[in-house]
Amino acid sequence: MTVFDDILAGRAPVSPLYEDDDVFAFMDIRPFTPGHLLVIPKVPARSLAELDPAVGGKLFQVGQRLAAALRASEVACDGVNFFLADGVAAGQEVFHVHLHVIPRTGGDGFGLRGRPTSPRRADLDYLAGSISRALRAS
Amino acid sequence: MTVFDDILAGRAPVSPLYEDDDVFAFMDIRPFTPGHLLVIPKVPARSLAELDPAVGGKLFQVGQRLAAALRASEVACDGVNFFLADGVAAGQEVFHVHLHVIPRTGGDGFGLRGRPTSPRRADLDYLAGSISRALRAS
Repeated sequence: MTVFDDILAGRAPVSPLYEDDDVFAFMDIRPFTPGHLLVIPKVPARSLAELDPAVGGKLFQVGQRLAAALRASEVACDGVNFFLADGVAAGQEVFHVHLHVIPRTGGDGFGLRGRPTSPRRADLDYLAGSISRALRAS
Repeated sequence: MTVFDDILAGRAPVSPLYEDDDVFAFMDIRPFTPGHLLVIPKVPARSLAELDPAVGGKLFQVGQRLAAALRASEVACDGVNFFLADGVAAGQEVFHVHLHVIPRTGGDGFGLRGRPTSPRRADLDYLAGSISRALRAS
């Protein structure tokens, strides 16, 4: 059980945005920028591996609709980020899948931390081979 | 036209991972972590607003499959992030929608930059009202 189960059951306060048979969307209470919202499956799924792909696809589609709504609303929104963390190593804190939809404006201070590298093509091909084999075996 | 059109047309080098009628996935040449990959629609769409939601849903579903493949491959992967930038203000650089799938390990140096706030419920409700109205009007 997570706080999202309490929200879905009406046992915790929430500022709701959207609901259908499979998906619920609401305001994040710890927003990186004003208007930051979350889209979650109604059926609990701790991870991407546990999430029905049909519902996963709907998370993205509802995210698209809410990104458009953010741009059309009073929220300051010149761009939008989607972000999802799967696993502790990826920064996941609530173990119920959630897609972050984050409105952006210039100089809002939000973004990615890290340094991209420029690997050789041979190294990219090596990893691609390993990932492709794992994909075919799944 | 973007570099992704050149990749899709076979005019630019690529380390491919997955392809179907709607979606193509390949290694990012500027990875934040080893194994960082991209999932894109084959039909060019500059933004989430231009992207057919049916194809948007498939991006997420292929992302789910590739996240599982990353975890099962030789790539160091204890977690996965999905990231998408829509618009210059959100950090978008290539104007062809792309979902980043980024394998994570402890201490890899990648993550989010920013400081979450704790708004009052009344402020969350106000923004939720504005976003909900924009959603219904769309």
